[in-house]
Parts: sequence; C-alpha cells; structure tokens
Amino acid sequence: MSFIRPNIESMAGYVPGEQPKEGEAVKLNTNENPYRASEKAYDAIRALAERGLSRYPNAVGQNFRKVAAELFGVEPDWIMCGNGSDDILTILTRTFVGENQLLRLPYPSYILYKSLAEIQGARSEEVYFLDDWRLPDYFSQAPAAAPTAPYRVNPLEGGAASDSLKLVYLPNPNSPSGTVLSVEEVEKIANNLPCPLVVDEAYADFAGTSCVELVKRNPRVMVSRTMSKSYALAGLRFGFLIARPEMIEQTLKVKDSYNCDSLSIAAATAALEDQDWLKATTKKIISTRERLQSRMRELGFIVPESHANFTWNSWPSPDLSHEELYLFLKNHGFLVRYMKYPAWGEGLRITVGTDEDTDACVDLVARYLNGER
Amino acid sequence: MSFIRPNIESMAGYVPGEQPKEGEAVKLNTNENPYRASEKAYDAIRALAERGLSRYPNAVGQNFRKVAAELFGVEPDWIMCGNGSDDILTILTRTFVGENQLLRLPYPSYILYKSLAEIQGARSEEVYFLDDWRLPDYFSQAPAAAPTAPYRVNPLEGGAASDSLKLVYLPNPNSPSGTVLSVEEVEKIANNLPCPLVVDEAYADFAGTSCVELVKRNPRVMVSRTMSKSYALAGLRFGFLIARPEMIEQTLKVKDSYNCDSLSIAAATAALEDQDWLKATTKKIISTRERLQSRMRELGFIVPESHANFTWNSWPSPDLSHEELYLFLKNHGFLVRYMKYPAWGEGLRITVGTDEDTDACVDLVARYLNGER
Repeated sequence: MSFIRPNIESMAGYVPGEQPKEGEAVKLNTNENPYRASEKAYDAIRALAERGLSRYPNAVGQNFRKVAAELFGVEPDWIMCGNGSDDILTILTRTFVGENQLLRLPYPSYILYKSLAEIQGARSEEVYFLDDWRLPDYFSQAPAAAPTAPYRVNPLEGGAASDSLKLVYLPNPNSPSGTVLSVEEVEKIANNLPCPLVVDEAYADFAGTSCVELVKRNPRVMVSRTMSKSYALAGLRFGFLIARPEMIEQTLKVKDSYNCDSLSIAAATAALEDQDWLKATTKKIISTRERLQSRMRELGFIVPESHANFTWNSWPSPDLSHEELYLFLKNHGFLVRYMKYPAWGEGLRITVGTDEDTDACVDLVARYLNGER
Repeated sequence: MSFIRPNIESMAGYVPGEQPKEGEAVKLNTNENPYRASEKAYDAIRALAERGLSRYPNAVGQNFRKVAAELFGVEPDWIMCGNGSDDILTILTRTFVGENQLLRLPYPSYILYKSLAEIQGARSEEVYFLDDWRLPDYFSQAPAAAPTAPYRVNPLEGGAASDSLKLVYLPNPNSPSGTVLSVEEVEKIANNLPCPLVVDEAYADFAGTSCVELVKRNPRVMVSRTMSKSYALAGLRFGFLIARPEMIEQTLKVKDSYNCDSLSIAAATAALEDQDWLKATTKKIISTRERLQSRMRELGFIVPESHANFTWNSWPSPDLSHEELYLFLKNHGFLVRYMKYPAWGEGLRITVGTDEDTDACVDLVARYLNGER
C-alpha cells in the first residue's frame, strides 16, 4: 500500500538540464552566464564566512528588499525574496491555486509551471503560442470547455469551469523561443484576465523591457526575477517577486520562514547594487547572441528573434535530426539543450556562452551540416 | 475581490523567534549554537567563492548524500537534501497530505507542523502530551471523532475519518520541553500507526539517541535532520531527510529542482565530515545545559529533563508572570523565548549559550526573583 498522494505518485517530476562534472563539457544547455559574477558578491560571501553563520538569516531578507525597492522604484514591502525564482513560483502556486483548480500557461514554455500544478493536485491549461510567438486572445479569456479554433489548448480532463482559473504564468521573454511580448500586450492580457498574472522575467535583463511598471498600474500583475541568469549566480539560488504589498503579505505566509540563507541574501544584495557589472555583462552577452543568431540563420536554421541569453534553433525540414545533432555536439564536448514538445515540435536551445565557446559550437554545427559524424 | 486561497488568507502565518540586529542582545531564543561552526565548513565556502557560482548546483546534493549515507549506514539514495529542515517538512507535507486530509502532531510541540497543514488546506490534530511528557496510546491510533478521556485532542472541525490520517509528526527531542521518547517507544508508535511517521530529530545530536535505525526496520519511518543547531549553521539553511529509497524517489519530485545552493551543499558536507568538531561542541553544550537546568531548578522552576540545547522553564504557581520575566531579561539584553500555548500553559524556553552568557542569564533571573524590576 502506498502512502503517497496520487497526484505525486502519478507525475513524472520535472527534469532539469544535465549538469556534467566541471570541465567535462562546455555548458550551453541551462542558460547560465559564462562570466564570473560581480566580485562584490563574492566579497560579501567571504565577509560572512568570517563573521559566521551560526545565527538564522533575516527572515525576509530586509537588506535585499531595500536595495531592490530602490532599483525598481517601489517600497521594500513590494518585494519578497526567494530561494531561486523556482521557490517564488512554488510559493505563488501554493498561495493562489487549490486542488482541482486551474492554472494557465503558454505552450511551449517553462515546463515547471505544469509540474507545479501537478504537485499541487491542480489542473493546468496550456495555450499554444501563435506562429509568430504572440498569444491568442483566448489566453486572457475565461476558460472554455472547448475553445474555438484556431486556438489550440492541450485538453483538460473534465472540462474547465470559468471560476476555477486562479493563476496565469507568462514567461517574458519566453523559453525556449527567446521571444518577448511588449508591455502593452502584457497589460492587455492582464486587464482582461479574471485572475492574477505572474510575469516570469527570468531573462528580462537581456531584453531591455520589463513589466515592473505594470505592477504599479494593475494590482493583479506580479513579476518574478532571478539572479541565476543575468547576475551569473545560478549556484546561489536567489530570486525575488515584485508585487503589491497586499499580495506579498499573503505569499510571506506560504514561504518557509527562513527560505533564503544569509550568504545568498548578502551576495544577491551586493550583486544587485553593482549595476555597472550588470550593464557591461549583458552588453557582452547580447552582442554574442546577435552573432550566434545570425550565424545559425546563415546555416539555414529558423531562429526567432531572441531577447534572452539563448537562441531557439529549428531546422525547416525533417531531413535533419535535432537529437542527432545534439548528440554530435555532446560527443564533441558541447552540451546544448535538445527539446521536444509533444504535439508541437522540437529544436535546440543554445545558451549564449563566451564568444570563443559560442563560435566553436557554431563551427561544430557547420561541420555536422557538412556531413561530419 | 480577493484571489488568495481561503486557507491562506484566514491563517495567521508562522512567526519565527525575534532576530535582533547583531550585538544588540544575547540570543538565547531560537536554539542557535553559540559556537562557530567547523572551520572546514567555512573553508568550503571560501573555496567556492574562488571557483565561482555561475553554474547550477548538483540538483540532489550528491556529495552530501554520500557523506551522510556513510555516517548513518545507509545508501546515498536514502538521503534527500533540503533548504533547512523546514524545507524537508514542507516537502513531506506536500508529498503525503492533500486538501482536507489529516496530519497529526503532539501538543505542545513545533508550531510549524500545524502551519504547514494550514498552507496545504489540510487539517491537523494536536494530541496532548501526558504530564510526564510521554504520549497517550491515542497518538498511534486511527483518529476518532471524540477520543476518550484522558486523551486530550484539540478539536477538529467536522470530525475525523480514520482513512484521512496521512502523516504524523513527532519531534524527538521535543521543543519546547526538551524531552525525548526512547527508540522503543517511537517504534511502538510507528508500528501501530496507519500512516508514515516523521521523526523530527533537529535536536538529536544533543540527546545521544536517534531513530535512524528505525528507518531500516520500518519503511514508514522517516527521520529529518538539520545543520542549524548542533552544527552551528542556522544561517546556511541545510537539512536532510533519511528515508527509504521508495519514499525519497517521491519526495524528490516535490522539492524544487535546485532547492539547495552550491555553498550550502559544500559547507554542510564539510561540516558533517568533521565529527570531531561535533563531538567536542555538543559535549560543551550538554555540560552547560546541565548547569542551566540545575540552577533554574534551584531557583524554583519546573524544568523537565532536557535532551536538547535548551531548557523549558515554568514557574509552579501563578505568582510569577513568565511574560514579565521575559521582558525583564530582554530589557537587560538577554533574549529568551516566552511561549504561551492556548489551553495548555506557558513558560520560558532558554537556549544553551556559552557558559558565560548562560550564567549571566540565570543571574538575571535570580535578580528578578529577588524583586528587581
């Protein structure tokens, strides 16, 4: 006899990208930053190693909240700190979505949103992006049992009642596509929706656009951020939520009391304060991204305009196997992400590395296209 | 209109102990360790600050699992790492207890268990300790709508169906009492229960007794541990679960993909490897605890025999206000934990500090009893 909740037992579990041992591969598969984070972050870590870690952290990461509030033009009680933005997304799902209630996400996007619904015993509705990576009107409408064509929605068991839609996730820029919706488009979605909208801005620093202003205009908009990508601190686990104080007040009840450790609070605060580092680093990455994008297009791949630190590359005809190309690259020491979305399609998501690593990866792709195996 | 789940909106939220600014008070209120953690843990942190944190951590903390497995005589797949043991408890609640299902805990004990049930939209049943801090037979029985006297149970709304009991929490040693049940007593409880039992061993290193052996004998027993207390790493946030692989396999689906950061995995691993440090430090703390305990008893307090790094002190008559004594100590720079449990009683939980701080705190208590205000 099993004691596990049936929704947990039946789910597959989210599988993150491969993490080879250090030095075993050039990692272009999980959108990490190829550069070393601001030394100010590391100074903060070293200082804390001297002062010691026997005391509990500040429960809400107050120092970080103050710095983030100033940067984004809000008050500290508009900020909640998280153990990575995955922690933020987990907390939001638990705050807003009960068992059998409905959560909506675009498709294809971050698979974790669906996993979070499964863990919660909730349902999820995947609304397909249109061919131009914009979203259909249905995305901001009350759920319908059978949405009219041309809107494609992954089927919901037992249909959908309009009052059960409790939360909508919108990654912007999106992964795997790297595409972005304008602030105006997002505002229109938020204004139409019957429930809160979480704009997951994990990659926003590479886009130069952000929906933080919308949080000030629409109390149902919340924005999540991470220090893993643009701040080069994936190993630190730190993310944050920007939302209205009445929302933050509730999400704080759901988070673990001490969800962020002292080292991550101190390092994230120092990193956020170093906006010069951020500007210089994102500039470098964006420049490499443009080169990666144009070279992959020259080789014949379809690459939607990227606003993130990766590109989405798909071959226009079935005569190339994305999976075989992925394995060819892996065998040559380059790890990219082969992604296959059922009922949609597949491709390779390539993280922007250093100029050298990125060029070397594209060179390998070119060799593969020239018949090398 | 509110978008928050009703169970979240109506709950008060768990309130952790006060965290004054550094140097503002002698902290004897949250069971932190007064000593600096093993320098090997800090060396690991410094080494990682050199190597950098741009990469994601190992998703399961494999290095830690190996070391913990060897220490406890199990295989690595019997271990799950957590972002503090609160993360472990959160994951367990989400794995085993659905909405409206039942979770059981002793009373008074760790208040968080009840908060976790509230967040989950689940119910909780608090079974009162007997006067000698042992548990009534009812604790291991299927829930009854109206348990027979002398078993005291905080009332459940809507009664309790026996098939809804999904998880039982047992802190051992218990907080606030510091008391411990023998391995034999816990095994008897586990063998009678119709569901899994989580033995929360946050303080077990101070007790010299552990139920890890039970995990090997009874597949429904799980043991959670923390590095916050005995290993002096509360600021690091690291805990772990010891359970059978078939349990771990399910809880891994529920945890955030990267719930532990690289720094905490490395530091916790190094700290666990330094068992000499652990032995020396717990020996010092136990020695101070014995002195604290006997001095408080000499002053007239009732102090159950402590097996943790704190003592539970209650005055035998109503002529002393625990709250006023707490405030007196606070005004003199000593923070202890005043705890009031509705329908049960109140007292002061005093963490074992250094000899010097602990003695100074007891001296202050004596001055208060002598009439100083």
